[in-house]
Amino acid sequence: MRDVLTEWRPVVDDAIETLLPRDIDEAYLVEWFGPASHRYDPDAIQRALSDPIWDLLDRGGKRWRAVVCLLLLDGFGADPRAYLPYACIPEVLHNGTIIVDDVEDGAEIRRGEPALHHRFGPDIALNAGNAMYFLPLKVIGKNPADLDPETQLATYEMLMDELNRTHLGQGMDIYWHRNRDATVAEAEYLEMCACKTGCLGRIVARLAAIITDQPPEVEREVAAYAEDMSIAFQIGDDILDVESTIEGTTEFGKAFGNDIREGKRTLMVIHALSAADPVAADRLSSILHKPENTREEITEAIGILQSTDSIEYARECALSFSQSAREHLRDVPLDEERADQLASFTEFVIERDV
Amino acid sequence: MRDVLTEWRPVVDDAIETLLPRDIDEAYLVEWFGPASHRYDPDAIQRALSDPIWDLLDRGGKRWRAVVCLLLLDGFGADPRAYLPYACIPEVLHNGTIIVDDVEDGAEIRRGEPALHHRFGPDIALNAGNAMYFLPLKVIGKNPADLDPETQLATYEMLMDELNRTHLGQGMDIYWHRNRDATVAEAEYLEMCACKTGCLGRIVARLAAIITDQPPEVEREVAAYAEDMSIAFQIGDDILDVESTIEGTTEFGKAFGNDIREGKRTLMVIHALSAADPVAADRLSSILHKPENTREEITEAIGILQSTDSIEYARECALSFSQSAREHLRDVPLDEERADQLASFTEFVIERDV
Repeated sequence: MRDVLTEWRPVVDDAIETLLPRDIDEAYLVEWFGPASHRYDPDAIQRALSDPIWDLLDRGGKRWRAVVCLLLLDGFGADPRAYLPYACIPEVLHNGTIIVDDVEDGAEIRRGEPALHHRFGPDIALNAGNAMYFLPLKVIGKNPADLDPETQLATYEMLMDELNRTHLGQGMDIYWHRNRDATVAEAEYLEMCACKTGCLGRIVARLAAIITDQPPEVEREVAAYAEDMSIAFQIGDDILDVESTIEGTTEFGKAFGNDIREGKRTLMVIHALSAADPVAADRLSSILHKPENTREEITEAIGILQSTDSIEYARECALSFSQSAREHLRDVPLDEERADQLASFTEFVIERDV
Repeated sequence: MRDVLTEWRPVVDDAIETLLPRDIDEAYLVEWFGPASHRYDPDAIQRALSDPIWDLLDRGGKRWRAVVCLLLLDGFGADPRAYLPYACIPEVLHNGTIIVDDVEDGAEIRRGEPALHHRFGPDIALNAGNAMYFLPLKVIGKNPADLDPETQLATYEMLMDELNRTHLGQGMDIYWHRNRDATVAEAEYLEMCACKTGCLGRIVARLAAIITDQPPEVEREVAAYAEDMSIAFQIGDDILDVESTIEGTTEFGKAFGNDIREGKRTLMVIHALSAADPVAADRLSSILHKPENTREEITEAIGILQSTDSIEYARECALSFSQSAREHLRDVPLDEERADQLASFTEFVIERDV
C-alpha cells in the first residue's frame, strides 16, 4: 500500500501544480480564470493563494484521496493518467477543509508546523482555504477528459450534494463540542462522520464512477465503501489523538490532548459518557467543556475513557466499518489487483495518520 | 427604486426560507440533502446553520442582488416568480461572504449588531458562512424551473468561474492591506473590485440571462452592467466608510474609521498615496499599517485624503462606472420600464448602503 502511495504522490503533486502553479504569472491567471477586466496582480495572488497552499501541501499528507480515486479508475479499466486532474479535486478540497477547520478549531499545529492561520494570518489562510473549495471544480469545465455534458452535469451535482453535507457534519460537530447540554447519540456521531469526513471520501469514489460512466449501483457501492472507510478513518484518527497523548509522542503533529482540549464528542467520549458511573461521566463532561485544560485534567479524562474500555470499543467499531467498507467492494466489477489494494486501504487508514 | 425593493424583499425572504427554513426538521434535511446514512441531528443543524444565518438575514440588507435578478428576468419577458429560488442564489452567496469576510477582517460590527463570529463564535460563523457557498447551488440540481441539462451545466460553469474569481479578488485585497510594501495600481484596484464585488453582481446578471436562454452577447452585456455597477458600489461603499467617519454617524453599522483601521487600499488611498507630497503619503501609509489606530490618527488619515481631493476623485470614478454600467444596458432587449429601473439602480447603489 505504502508503495502505491509513494509511487503516485509526486505524480499527483505535479497534477495539482497544473491547477495551481507554485509560481503564479499573468498567463496562468488568464488561462485558468479568464482575462482580467482591468489588471490582475499576480504577485498578490502568488502570496495570497499559491504560497500558503503549497506551504501546507509540502508539509506532507499522503494524497490518499487522489490515489484511491486513481486506483478505482484503474480498477474500472480506465487509464488513470488520463483523469489525473479529476483525482486532484478531492485532494485539494480536503486540504482546503483542513485550513478552514484549523481556524474554526483554533488549532495551533498542523502536520508538525504552525497551523496556516498562525503562519500567514487568519485572513490569508481562510481565503486560501475557501479558494480551494472552488479552484479544483474548474477542472470539470476545463474538461480535460472530454466528458460529455451529461457526465459533467452529474459531476457537478454530485459535488454539490457532498459539499453541502460536509457542512452539515461540521456544523453538528462544532455545535456539540460547544454545548455541554447537547446529547449526542451514537447514530448521530456516525452521521457526523459520514457527512464531515465521509463526503470527501464519497467524492473520491463517485468521481471515479461518474467520469468513467459506471452504472448507478456501482457508484452507490463504491460511495458506500468510501464512506464507511472514512468513518473508520475518523474514528481511527480520534483514537490516535488519545493514544499519542497517552504515549507522549509528538510525531502525530498535534498538541497534547488536542481533542479533549477542544471538547470533541468522539465515539470514545460518547461511549464513556453512557458507560461510566454518573460521577465520572459528569467529571469527563466538565473537563471537556472547560475553556482550558491542564495536563492533569487531560490525563484524568483519558483515564475515564480507559476505565470504560471506550478506546477499545471505538477500535472495534472502526474495524467493523472497515470490514463493511470491504464488503461494499465485493460486487463491484474491479480489476483484481486493484480490488485487493482498495480493500487493504480500509486497514491502512485506521492504522496511521494519512 | 425603494418601492421595488420594499415590494420584493418579503417575497425573496420567503423564497430563501424554502432553501433554509427558520425551523429545521428531519423532513427538510432528508428532502434537501438526501436521506441520512445514520441519523441527522436537526437540533444541532438548527443551531449551527439556520439560527446564525437567519440572525444575519433578519438584520437587514435590501436583497438588491435578488431583486436585480428578478427585474432582469422580468425585463427579458420571463415570469420572475417562476425563477425565485434562482434569484436567491447570489443573495445567499453574498451573505455567506459577509460572514467570512468579517472573520477575515476581524470586524466587530455588522449591520449595527455584533459581527456573527462575535455572537456565535468563529467556528459556527465560519461554517455557516461556508455552508452558504453551497446551499443555494443545490437549486440548480433541484431544478424548479425545469431547465434543460445544457442550461443547468452552463449555470454551474458560470458559478464556478465567478466564485473562483471572487477569491482572487479577496486575496489581492487582503494581501495589499497586510503588506505595506505592496504597490497597488489603480487598474489592479479596479480588478480587485471586479473580482471581489463584481463577480457576485455578474452572477446576478448571468444567472438571469442563462436561465432564460439569452444569446451570449446579452449575457455579456448584462454581466458588464452588473460588474461596473458593483465597482461603483464598492467605491461608493469605501466613500461611505470615510464620510460616516467624518460626520460621526454610526448608522452605517460599522466601527469608526473601519477601513483605515483595517489598512484597506481603497481607491481614495491609492489616489492620495500618489497625489500627496512624500511626507504626507508616508504618514498615510504608516497610519494604515499600524496594528491599532487612535481616533486622532484616523482623523489625520482622512485629512490627507481630503487634502488631495481623493474622496472627490473616487466619487467621480464611481459615477463614471455607474454611467458605464447604464451604457452596457443600452443594446440589451429589455422591457422599457424594467430597463429604466435597472438603470436607476446604478445610481442607487452608490448613494446608500444596500
